[in-house]
Amino acid sequence: MNTHGTLFRVTTWGESHGKAIGAVIDGCPANLPLEEGEIRDALRRCDRPIPELATSRDEPNEARILSGTWRGRTLGTPICIVVPNVDAESRDYAPLSGVFRPGHGDFSYHAKYGTDPLPGGGRASGRQCIARLAAGCIADKLLRAVLPAVTIGARIVELAGMAVEDRGSLQRAVDKAARLRDLGDSSGGIVEVVADGLPAGLGEPVFGGLDAALASALMGIGAVKSVEIGAGAACASLAGSRFNDGFCAARDRPGFSSNRAGGVLAGIGTGAPIVARIAVKPTPSIAAPQMGATVDGELREIRVRGRHDASVTPRVAPIAAAMTALVLVDLLMIAGRIPRERLP
Amino acid sequence: MNTHGTLFRVTTWGESHGKAIGAVIDGCPANLPLEEGEIRDALRRCDRPIPELATSRDEPNEARILSGTWRGRTLGTPICIVVPNVDAESRDYAPLSGVFRPGHGDFSYHAKYGTDPLPGGGRASGRQCIARLAAGCIADKLLRAVLPAVTIGARIVELAGMAVEDRGSLQRAVDKAARLRDLGDSSGGIVEVVADGLPAGLGEPVFGGLDAALASALMGIGAVKSVEIGAGAACASLAGSRFNDGFCAARDRPGFSSNRAGGVLAGIGTGAPIVARIAVKPTPSIAAPQMGATVDGELREIRVRGRHDASVTPRVAPIAAAMTALVLVDLLMIAGRIPRERLP
Amino acid sequence: MNTHGTLFRVTTWGESHGKAIGAVIDGCPANLPLEEGEIRDALRRCDRPIPELATSRDEPNEARILSGTWRGRTLGTPICIVVPNVDAESRDYAPLSGVFRPGHGDFSYHAKYGTDPLPGGGRASGRQCIARLAAGCIADKLLRAVLPAVTIGARIVELAGMAVEDRGSLQRAVDKAARLRDLGDSSGGIVEVVADGLPAGLGEPVFGGLDAALASALMGIGAVKSVEIGAGAACASLAGSRFNDGFCAARDRPGFSSNRAGGVLAGIGTGAPIVARIAVKPTPSIAAPQMGATVDGELREIRVRGRHDASVTPRVAPIAAAMTALVLVDLLMIAGRIPRERLP
Amino acid sequence: MNTHGTLFRVTTWGESHGKAIGAVIDGCPANLPLEEGEIRDALRRCDRPIPELATSRDEPNEARILSGTWRGRTLGTPICIVVPNVDAESRDYAPLSGVFRPGHGDFSYHAKYGTDPLPGGGRASGRQCIARLAAGCIADKLLRAVLPAVTIGARIVELAGMAVEDRGSLQRAVDKAARLRDLGDSSGGIVEVVADGLPAGLGEPVFGGLDAALASALMGIGAVKSVEIGAGAACASLAGSRFNDGFCAARDRPGFSSNRAGGVLAGIGTGAPIVARIAVKPTPSIAAPQMGATVDGELREIRVRGRHDASVTPRVAPIAAAMTALVLVDLLMIAGRIPRERLP
Repeated sequence: MNTHGTLFRVTTWGESHGKAIGAVIDGCPANLPLEEGEIRDALRRCDRPIPELATSRDEPNEARILSGTWRGRTLGTPICIVVPNVDAESRDYAPLSGVFRPGHGDFSYHAKYGTDPLPGGGRASGRQCIARLAAGCIADKLLRAVLPAVTIGARIVELAGMAVEDRGSLQRAVDKAARLRDLGDSSGGIVEVVADGLPAGLGEPVFGGLDAALASALMGIGAVKSVEIGAGAACASLAGSRFNDGFCAARDRPGFSSNRAGGVLAGIGTGAPIVARIAVKPTPSIAAPQMGATVDGELREIRVRGRHDASVTPRVAPIAAAMTALVLVDLLMIAGRIPRERLP
Repeated sequence: MNTHGTLFRVTTWGESHGKAIGAVIDGCPANLPLEEGEIRDALRRCDRPIPELATSRDEPNEARILSGTWRGRTLGTPICIVVPNVDAESRDYAPLSGVFRPGHGDFSYHAKYGTDPLPGGGRASGRQCIARLAAGCIADKLLRAVLPAVTIGARIVELAGMAVEDRGSLQRAVDKAARLRDLGDSSGGIVEVVADGLPAGLGEPVFGGLDAALASALMGIGAVKSVEIGAGAACASLAGSRFNDGFCAARDRPGFSSNRAGGVLAGIGTGAPIVARIAVKPTPSIAAPQMGATVDGELREIRVRGRHDASVTPRVAPIAAAMTALVLVDLLMIAGRIPRERLP
Repeated sequence: MNTHGTLFRVTTWGESHGKAIGAVIDGCPANLPLEEGEIRDALRRCDRPIPELATSRDEPNEARILSGTWRGRTLGTPICIVVPNVDAESRDYAPLSGVFRPGHGDFSYHAKYGTDPLPGGGRASGRQCIARLAAGCIADKLLRAVLPAVTIGARIVELAGMAVEDRGSLQRAVDKAARLRDLGDSSGGIVEVVADGLPAGLGEPVFGGLDAALASALMGIGAVKSVEIGAGAACASLAGSRFNDGFCAARDRPGFSSNRAGGVLAGIGTGAPIVARIAVKPTPSIAAPQMGATVDGELREIRVRGRHDASVTPRVAPIAAAMTALVLVDLLMIAGRIPRERLP
Repeated sequence: MNTHGTLFRVTTWGESHGKAIGAVIDGCPANLPLEEGEIRDALRRCDRPIPELATSRDEPNEARILSGTWRGRTLGTPICIVVPNVDAESRDYAPLSGVFRPGHGDFSYHAKYGTDPLPGGGRASGRQCIARLAAGCIADKLLRAVLPAVTIGARIVELAGMAVEDRGSLQRAVDKAARLRDLGDSSGGIVEVVADGLPAGLGEPVFGGLDAALASALMGIGAVKSVEIGAGAACASLAGSRFNDGFCAARDRPGFSSNRAGGVLAGIGTGAPIVARIAVKPTPSIAAPQMGATVDGELREIRVRGRHDASVTPRVAPIAAAMTALVLVDLLMIAGRIPRERLP
């Protein structure tokens, strides 16, 4: 199931070793200004947000739009975006180890599809997320065109076990993650996504609630192992009198004096900022020795060579924002609050 | 969107104030033995698992099967289960406050549908989950009929801020929750769901992965504010060398020497036990004074009268197990591992 | 797959031999006036439209609304409608022949689900369509509430091989069908559905076009064997200059000087009346001898006893109108032209 | 909605004027041999089946596979196929008339998306169907790999109003269509699709029946105006005793002594050949003068210049076969009769 969404539908495709990766965005209304350059710029902004923790850039990600636009505006028809894998050929001939690496999808993909480990991780590669960023860029443009007050932000709030509150604490955490990398190890982190300025009422309970949709979209990002809404797991140890958000006076409708609910009650948005927090696991590729296994079940100690991100947390942040944009645009469209057919 | 699943599809309906609640289960294969009594028994087992923390039972939940079976076996056609709301009429005439209660869905439902607060919470009532339990009972029967080795369990691992490890610690936590209730307050908790015995390979990445599907299903339970898979949020502060699960020798296929991944890698099950942990917020209805609001935005201090669960955590546990069963049966059916049309 | 629609979703359930049949309508906006009596009236109007060709009425079809309304208005939550099968018990104990009847679903249901022929036809019974009529009644109310100019009509244009143009020709055709019935045989017919007053632009090409959606909905009615849009099959022998609908002057937008396209071009509505024509096969239950077969493949000559409709064409007409309403409401909702959440 | 199917999902994209057209096939199991050359060959076979009635070939349709395969076999991941529009640039600068042509989607697309008529018809161009042919080629390979006895054929049975039974009658009909073209006019036709060798039991009633799914898939082809199953519209004038297919002795299961049902009863396949017949409207582009209209509603007589197919019926035949393959593979996969994850 490589399609996300009900009305604003995004289908992604592509493996790390293949000729290209991409996305088909189906359901974008007509008349949205859209140029290839914007998607390229968005991809560039998301690429290696913290260069010290990332591998050297190897591909320029030259997104091309193959359909769905005409003279710089969308047509209402599916938008196909293709990003060539420039150095795919070299990967193609890389020696394949045939060994399942710990923490990677090699084994589980084999269990499902019977396929051998692919160079670069195949479909389970982080590179696959470029398609989500491209789709998220369109969702974001659409959102801002219709609801200019909406903002979606994602920031690192913890890295390598250290809280991140400002530039200084971020630099210290980056330094720690870099040191761990130099020791042949890797780090995880926590990303917080905040979407503000949305109307109350979004979400399709009981199975398509706003929080459920966000949980699915965020947990589906490769390295994510937890999703919390608002106060999240901390709610378990708070008394009701400390957890409930009381109402307060607001201009034109009821407001809340706190936001432990993270902007969602009973699966429906309250109009307060939507707040989600996700935990990113440490990069599974590490230079330190680990126990891998072959297709035949033989154990084999491996050291994953090559350069790998000290932490993928910085890369996950914009992907989380992109997935949030996809969820929100889809729910807004279902609710009839974003035109389905054409923008004015 | 009151339907869950792609092939094993469950549509629930019903409000607390209405005549009945129920579910339509579409996609159950023919020839599964199924009697009304089994569903009633399942609902009874899930009702008030810890009586000290629950309100007095008011309804017997006499589930009826209206379709989809013939002479004690399923037909392959949709199974409609109805559970009458015995005391709905009394609720119907209860005085309506017209005030949005903090922590409840009153306000967000109003924001979406324009409806006034309904007696008992309407569709957002916890009672709605009985339909999920009934559907989960069928999913569970089907699962055991095809894969007898599979077990799904859900247990409280934290209650009222206290870790629960055994009978003794559970009793101490229950006592604390009961005291908080007596003080006009309420408690949350944490539930852990473990599904064991499943084949490797389940899940439909990149958007329908096993972890994403579980996250959606579990976050969609009314009181849940976080979902963690395996080590969950703790992964953020672990180094890769401490987080990755190395392979170990196993009889017929690669095994894992630990399970911090919680049985899922790259959205696909590894064959290790699937482990999810969810945080349950404290019951929003408390006797202590809270600030509510009217439809017109006027603030109004309220005390929620009547008896309410000291913590809904005990009720959430079987619902989490039921939702897990729904997810697993659907994924097994998509994978062709549960017959779609008829059991032998 | 017993669910129809993307946003206005109708799930039907129930067999002829079971306790009840019904529908869950998910996606109806809040604030639509709706009473049980309206659905009962609609079912009564559709019951035995031409009494001379129908069996004697055996059940009053006392529809009940179990959820989704409050004080006579919809809530935006799923509406569950139940119609008890009053005389199901008698059917339950009817002697089962164990023989697949020609023209019925007995054999194909057995091939799929392994089930024996059920009294009354089980899920494949025409009685199942009552659920569609009930759902269609709600779709119709919603349509008229939002777009009062829209009309949907279905009428018999051929019966028992005779063209029906007016009361006189209808009576002659009815007489012929009655004579055939008296001879132990049955008749088919053709129904034309016309939906007028709709805005141009409906339909979701390339796979969810208006004509494709109608074709699926109409062909899915039990006895239907063909669907034509506009000039339909006759287009095959017309030259392009005779088939194309030229434009003509209209008040506020381009109009058409003819409507051989039946209101659809390239899968999208043109604003001209939507015209579909369906062929209804003769009632398969006939008193004349036919060759049936047992589960074991033994041939057995049977005569289907009991009273059966001389032609189901009159019953199919309102079902075709109901299915058309379901299609149109769903497409209007997808297009954002019917409010998804609440009516003003 | 540019996605077809539930488990075997095909998303098409592309306009006639754009850089390329293509399809993403999601849900094809791993280990199916697949090379670009096979798809190119399939496209070549479908291109201009009757050259006398087609325009001169202008594009070689060099299909490329961008994802989902590795060393000549599928991976189980989405397969993206791209077919460049070689001469798109020239179309880009073609003078746009700004006039809605009769019989084309220009007007209805404008009504929905607000877009001006596009060179070549944009998304509504027949060229868009190349994506369906490419997807159908994969469906066909998959079908034959799992069920080698299955055959799907589509042939012209009527052209330009003349019945086609053999080579001679085909040539006479082709001659007539060519003459009409030379007179500035165009012709329609009728195509019959037969799928044989399938197991009984396919189809997902009551809304996803085999006949309903075929009707949707076939009616969704651009020029199709009617779909008939088996005896089709002729059933309306047959008596039940003449229409019902009696059972006859067959080797291992009940057979039928005729096939007026066209292989479907109650929405489920009977094991008899599935027979569908579709009417293809005459090519709307004709040299003869017709009344078009501008966006502003002004009438404008136009003659569609350039070369156009005398009849698109020959082109529709392979597309109908491709759509039938898509429907059947999806239903077989839902039924668990085609492996979802990997071929042996």
